[in-house]
Amino acid sequence: MSVAVKVRVPGTTANCGPGFDAVGIACTIYNELELNLSKEGSLVIEIAGEGKEVIPTDEKNIIYQVIQTVLEKVGKRYQGIHIKMVNRIPLSRGLGSSAAAIVAGLFAANVATGNTLSKNELLDMATAIEGHPDNVAPAIFGGITTSVIQDGGARYLRFVPPAQLSMVVAIPEFNLSTQAARNVLPRTVPFKDAVFNISRTALVIGALSQGEFHHLRYALEDKIHQPYREHLIPGMQQVFDAALDKGALGVAISGAGPCLMAFTQNDCDQIGAGMVQAFASNHIKARYLVLDIDTEGAQVIGD
Amino acid sequence: MSVAVKVRVPGTTANCGPGFDAVGIACTIYNELELNLSKEGSLVIEIAGEGKEVIPTDEKNIIYQVIQTVLEKVGKRYQGIHIKMVNRIPLSRGLGSSAAAIVAGLFAANVATGNTLSKNELLDMATAIEGHPDNVAPAIFGGITTSVIQDGGARYLRFVPPAQLSMVVAIPEFNLSTQAARNVLPRTVPFKDAVFNISRTALVIGALSQGEFHHLRYALEDKIHQPYREHLIPGMQQVFDAALDKGALGVAISGAGPCLMAFTQNDCDQIGAGMVQAFASNHIKARYLVLDIDTEGAQVIGD
Repeated sequence: MSVAVKVRVPGTTANCGPGFDAVGIACTIYNELELNLSKEGSLVIEIAGEGKEVIPTDEKNIIYQVIQTVLEKVGKRYQGIHIKMVNRIPLSRGLGSSAAAIVAGLFAANVATGNTLSKNELLDMATAIEGHPDNVAPAIFGGITTSVIQDGGARYLRFVPPAQLSMVVAIPEFNLSTQAARNVLPRTVPFKDAVFNISRTALVIGALSQGEFHHLRYALEDKIHQPYREHLIPGMQQVFDAALDKGALGVAISGAGPCLMAFTQNDCDQIGAGMVQAFASNHIKARYLVLDIDTEGAQVIGD
Repeated sequence: MSVAVKVRVPGTTANCGPGFDAVGIACTIYNELELNLSKEGSLVIEIAGEGKEVIPTDEKNIIYQVIQTVLEKVGKRYQGIHIKMVNRIPLSRGLGSSAAAIVAGLFAANVATGNTLSKNELLDMATAIEGHPDNVAPAIFGGITTSVIQDGGARYLRFVPPAQLSMVVAIPEFNLSTQAARNVLPRTVPFKDAVFNISRTALVIGALSQGEFHHLRYALEDKIHQPYREHLIPGMQQVFDAALDKGALGVAISGAGPCLMAFTQNDCDQIGAGMVQAFASNHIKARYLVLDIDTEGAQVIGD
């Protein structure tokens, strides 16, 4: 006997300027995972799309590992594990590919074994693996999430803005590990920089939850991580300026970068083209995607 | 000829735990100002209620000074200035008495001289006088506000929670100047403490705007000002514990203190009594008020 399930999980953008390790948004770009579990057989991993050349197809594969975690937790054993990934989220660019992989494995294994774990339990497991909840929360629940670690577990709040909001993401042709991007961060920050970020984070959540997007331009400003990461993303400020010049509401590094994103309700392609051109003038090849807010999160899909 | 106007301005609670200098809430406790301007006459200041023994009744009076600022700005001159205050907001306790005084003077003088200044201009003027917008914004506009200083001016966003929320404020019988409470703050903070506050501020605004008040308990936790101020407010932690023990949703210092506040939807009097008792066991005499969120802000009232 065997069980099969196919799921999709959205990419996510975290931080949103000042909201470091706090704010995440699910985006309409998806990885798909088809999981087949059978009593007999062996591990087979097939990967199509983003990262197919570099993602391990043996027991080092993160999706395989999280599936095993679920199987152990629910007390089930399968010899035959067939994983088929279709990846659309670029790897190590700040669009939550790692969170999507973790959530896909947890979610698919849980569905395949009878849905015994709640989504909140999956969130805690995903947070423990990823280290922070800001990408995994929106990957599971969709929408915009704010999240904290409390008493060793993740707590989150989810909302969807009352008006349409698009994200133009410029994706440069180099990747940046989250670890490398974290290594440049300071151990202490000036009190006034902390307060700068606190007040702007409050305004970002207010603006997004109330649909008052005109605040985003200054609400998205940050002093505790983006200035320290600017040298890792050549042309960052020019790309931001180009997006704002073409009418973007506000700009930020997506996650730990190097993707740069602009929020907008209009002129998506002009903004994207301007961002790509600004990267090009810094000798960085880039492309852009126009994404909306995904409101579903991880879900089972048909064949 | 003379013009007369009577206004009321709400007290306000700022910071709300992690949202230092960022978040403010207008409360249903009001100071009233009756202003009479005439071409002839002199300065007369009458004060009833809170602070009547200590507030200056000459040209050092802050309300007189801000009235003069408005008169200069709009190009009008009056010799006779009659100020009649009825103060209900306790002085220097963290309930925005200073912001209320400034806003009352600005607002009344503007109404009396023909409403030539917009509320946004009054906000900028009040912010310049007060030094930060987090009390003056809710005092002017009511509701809950998030605010930032940007390009030398104040920007704010206002919202009202979708469900009823009360605030129980324990008012100890000693005051604490904002300056003294600011002097104990550090010049730098650990990066992880800044992130702690950023993520909780995001959750506070999410919880208040979405009516998901069950998050408040941990969302209101703070690491950048309350721990540094605890020694200025004897029994702070016991008062917090008492409020939570009696069912409060969450607790925080009100503004720079020494008032301590608890958010709740029920059991207001039990919570208030518990807070007062906890102060008493630390040899601090205190009383409590049960306040709701004021949604009107500064307004003209009838005689």
